[in-house]
Amino acid sequence: MDLLKRLKETPLPFAALLGIEIISAASDRIVAEMTVRHELCTRPDVLHGGALMAFADTLGALGTLANLTEGSGTATIESKTNFISSAPVGARIVGEATPLHRGSRTMVWQTRITNAEGKLVAMVTQTQLIFPKPAKSPQ
Amino acid sequence: MDLLKRLKETPLPFAALLGIEIISAASDRIVAEMTVRHELCTRPDVLHGGALMAFADTLGALGTLANLTEGSGTATIESKTNFISSAPVGARIVGEATPLHRGSRTMVWQTRITNAEGKLVAMVTQTQLIFPKPAKSPQ
Amino acid sequence: MDLLKRLKETPLPFAALLGIEIISAASDRIVAEMTVRHELCTRPDVLHGGALMAFADTLGALGTLANLTEGSGTATIESKTNFISSAPVGARIVGEATPLHRGSRTMVWQTRITNAEGKLVAMVTQTQLIFPKPAKSPQ
Amino acid sequence: MDLLKRLKETPLPFAALLGIEIISAASDRIVAEMTVRHELCTRPDVLHGGALMAFADTLGALGTLANLTEGSGTATIESKTNFISSAPVGARIVGEATPLHRGSRTMVWQTRITNAEGKLVAMVTQTQLIFPKPAKSPQ
Repeated sequence: MDLLKRLKETPLPFAALLGIEIISAASDRIVAEMTVRHELCTRPDVLHGGALMAFADTLGALGTLANLTEGSGTATIESKTNFISSAPVGARIVGEATPLHRGSRTMVWQTRITNAEGKLVAMVTQTQLIFPKPAKSPQ
Repeated sequence: MDLLKRLKETPLPFAALLGIEIISAASDRIVAEMTVRHELCTRPDVLHGGALMAFADTLGALGTLANLTEGSGTATIESKTNFISSAPVGARIVGEATPLHRGSRTMVWQTRITNAEGKLVAMVTQTQLIFPKPAKSPQ
Repeated sequence: MDLLKRLKETPLPFAALLGIEIISAASDRIVAEMTVRHELCTRPDVLHGGALMAFADTLGALGTLANLTEGSGTATIESKTNFISSAPVGARIVGEATPLHRGSRTMVWQTRITNAEGKLVAMVTQTQLIFPKPAKSPQ
Repeated sequence: MDLLKRLKETPLPFAALLGIEIISAASDRIVAEMTVRHELCTRPDVLHGGALMAFADTLGALGTLANLTEGSGTATIESKTNFISSAPVGARIVGEATPLHRGSRTMVWQTRITNAEGKLVAMVTQTQLIFPKPAKSPQ
């Protein structure tokens, strides 16, 4: 997939800082992984909720990008997270984003974050607004 | 305030990575600032939504800590963000967290994030679960 | 205000069923009241969370309507509620909706619901999508 | 199941007003249906978002009740809805609530609401706080 290749070559700065690794990117399913490094932690040494939300936000936005037509754009307008269990330093977490809705004005993606044993860490639901390609002016 | 002093001496690892600066920490109001560095950005070069959510999460958790009795603890169990406007690289953002509820079982904090001109960037509401101090065993 | 007059004459069916009374409707602030009747309750006899959310949803949508240009429309695309305290049967609750954002594509409204003593009952934040007036075809 | 029998005999007042019919109630899955009557509508004549949220809230709370030990209680502390498509008057909607988390302090339930053709109408995620059975006093 073109999008995946492009992201691997020039990753988003914050996604690179977090160490997000995109595993697969289809138009109806994005999978990524991330290792809980010490600098992504709160105290005690478990993954900071903000790093979890950033991980999910990246996947939901990427899922939307995978469905856009050339020239249109997107922005996350809202995001909701339920934190279920913690991910200690050293853990490897997996995020899987799937669409609830793919419309022409908005898309809604849900990202399920689990640990290596498959236990639910967090569930994130986010809405993406779609910016249509600007209409060509007659000249 | 003790809490503020302690946080300045040994900041949370992820808060340090983001460059969050706590300006004031009272039991009913936490104020912090953060500069939008390139590595906190998405593409185009505006603050990644995840960095915004992490900034707010830190403030809401800190507000809760400022209200806990010795020995009790807290965890964010859910967080909701509405993204209103973007913060470009180089911008300085301000977060102000105030409580909607401070109970013995849960606290609810709302963080208003604005840019230097006072324009609303995002609004975040989060629920903190309170873990009571473990009861002393009779022996 | 025209909108208020129109709503009083022909209220939304569900708003009528709930007994929502619009007190004032300005473009930046909607105020309404509702009495906790037994049939709006859960068990024990306190206002059902769903009735609270319906009350707020009505105010946020109304606030958006008060800002629309002729011919455009709106729909709630997401809503988030934090429940803080309960409202027992017989109580009178007050809802005040104010905008966080009034844009051309979306509006975000926050509704603060309190009891007669001013105690916070719930806080609701919702996003309204704006449907522009269909462009006139050239003939 | 005892709970289901009890609810059918003495339904919650607001659930009765909405016309919610519980189809099945297991500890890991609650299914219910509701018909979109005119008085549950907004304008135009589609189900009011508040009625949708109330429908889901009832299912998530019921799912939690199905997992409580004797003497403990629950309250919804937060609820988040994404509205995907509308349900016109006369439609029959189906809600299916399943748990994301069933802990001793909180439970998190997600309710998927679809129309008779299986199209997604709304997705609701809610957190229930658990009130433990009061400890017996020594006398």
